[in-house]
Amino acid sequence: MTRAEIVKKLVHIEERSIRPQGKAFAPANIALCKYWGKRDKELNLPITSSLSVSLGALGTETVLSLTEEQDIITLNGQRVDGAGSFARRLTEFLDLFRLPGRFFQVETINTIPTGAGLASSASGFAALVCALRELLQLNIDSKSLSILARLGSGSACRSLYNGFVEWRAGELTDGMDSYAEPLPDSWPEMRLGVVMLTEKEKPHSSRDAMNRTTETSLLYKQWPGKVEKDLLALKTAIREKDFALLGKTAESNALAMHATMLDAWPPVLYWLPETIAIFKHVWELREQNVEVYFTIDAGPNVKLLFLQSEIKRIEKVFKNVYIIAPFG
Amino acid sequence: MTRAEIVKKLVHIEERSIRPQGKAFAPANIALCKYWGKRDKELNLPITSSLSVSLGALGTETVLSLTEEQDIITLNGQRVDGAGSFARRLTEFLDLFRLPGRFFQVETINTIPTGAGLASSASGFAALVCALRELLQLNIDSKSLSILARLGSGSACRSLYNGFVEWRAGELTDGMDSYAEPLPDSWPEMRLGVVMLTEKEKPHSSRDAMNRTTETSLLYKQWPGKVEKDLLALKTAIREKDFALLGKTAESNALAMHATMLDAWPPVLYWLPETIAIFKHVWELREQNVEVYFTIDAGPNVKLLFLQSEIKRIEKVFKNVYIIAPFG
Repeated sequence: MTRAEIVKKLVHIEERSIRPQGKAFAPANIALCKYWGKRDKELNLPITSSLSVSLGALGTETVLSLTEEQDIITLNGQRVDGAGSFARRLTEFLDLFRLPGRFFQVETINTIPTGAGLASSASGFAALVCALRELLQLNIDSKSLSILARLGSGSACRSLYNGFVEWRAGELTDGMDSYAEPLPDSWPEMRLGVVMLTEKEKPHSSRDAMNRTTETSLLYKQWPGKVEKDLLALKTAIREKDFALLGKTAESNALAMHATMLDAWPPVLYWLPETIAIFKHVWELREQNVEVYFTIDAGPNVKLLFLQSEIKRIEKVFKNVYIIAPFG
Repeated sequence: MTRAEIVKKLVHIEERSIRPQGKAFAPANIALCKYWGKRDKELNLPITSSLSVSLGALGTETVLSLTEEQDIITLNGQRVDGAGSFARRLTEFLDLFRLPGRFFQVETINTIPTGAGLASSASGFAALVCALRELLQLNIDSKSLSILARLGSGSACRSLYNGFVEWRAGELTDGMDSYAEPLPDSWPEMRLGVVMLTEKEKPHSSRDAMNRTTETSLLYKQWPGKVEKDLLALKTAIREKDFALLGKTAESNALAMHATMLDAWPPVLYWLPETIAIFKHVWELREQNVEVYFTIDAGPNVKLLFLQSEIKRIEKVFKNVYIIAPFG
């Protein structure tokens, strides 16, 4: 099934409904249980469910309008080269919503500090579908909106909500049961700390790394079972405010994801030497009874998980930490 | 079943057969397919088979004699504290062969350069059982000798032979079918390069790490399947002199072993920041068509695998490399 077929199923686009502008904000999100492996690459259908926390005011704001001749994309005020991979990915997605002979002007502002290593494609596509809904006056519910966002970038479906969000993998081949939903719980004391690394790494695309892992790693066969166990633990931890359980589960889940990459061939390793040094600092702090854990995505940056009460001890060890309060 | 029961099954020790001295050398070995996980901790029975290459003249030389009052152990000419873990492990093993009221003098010399990160317990226990055989005039075949060495340290059973050696896991609960045998093939052009790391790390005991992994890692469930596949590939590579297949299989096997450790809780990570830097150098060299691969044991040191023809290009990149010709 193609993305175009799904979009046609979900929305009806009419020239006469179009408004002058659509404007939306969506938060970035960090997965505590990772999305790692697709059962359908065209529709971004995942092999497993996943669970994230959104980053409040950190995310993407997008203003969308119609224009003539060609798509115009600006990112943080700068015009983006239409031939680059960023613009091409956006344009291909916008094609799914295009009226004959009409083009889109997309003004995108990321409120995520550059260099923080926080993925912006999730908040970017989430903001874009919300802006599309407004611009084209689409008559859809939030479940369908989450599905549309997923077609742009898998984890974007989680960026439609604040707080803790679960993306259920679903089972249907058209993915109509694969969308995100918010959990009711909030945890105002929870903090995320992004440890900034100076060295920039030639990145593996996370899409390629994911596919290479599912195709070549034997250890990956255990990943779905790991996720099932971790999701249960995370939901218990969130419900019962058991921070040690949350931290331990998120850390182990992230390490297991990276473990499956090591077992791919050729091996995939996102870590820099400094990444390991940060892991060790975290483990040393835990030995001193500081409740701090980490998670790490398909990149070298480490994200610390801790409670507000530990903020001073964290800042003492990690000079270059950028602290986020996901619940404001 | 206890170690003492196994020893009683295999050897008969008589006062009148004892000679003044037993002297033996055994090589260290590096596994291309790792021994990782025990099905019996008392008898060091492995969950899977493994395959190693012995390091020729690098290993342990042991001279054994009987003495009065207490065991006396020297290592590289220095008397070893009897209360330390090294001496206690040796003494407990010697208890299995002890005649009433008699003690052992063990003079051990490691020809392995210190700091090379090459395990000496394998060559140590292999040399020790060979010296015991000579001292006590034990009437046993090499299969039984390999079993005795295994009782001291699992991988010691592989250090009784030169060249490529396979340790078959076996199935019996008493381990009588769990011993090492040499492969007939030799590969004179093969080289191992140990990249010396300056920083010393507080080590996890590999015994504890192994047990923690088998007890807590879900990904470990795939390890036996991985080993089965890798052993077949390694034997094909050795038989057909396919160095790329040998290198790729050994590297992937080592990374998968470390991957299972990452999935343990608490996580086990032997790597130092420098370890990662070395991995990346190896991968960069491969991109330049230099056929070099690595393996890594339960420690931070990386061992390069390459052929004699690449020696200059290796030495150019790795200034601190100690090169070994396993086939002399």
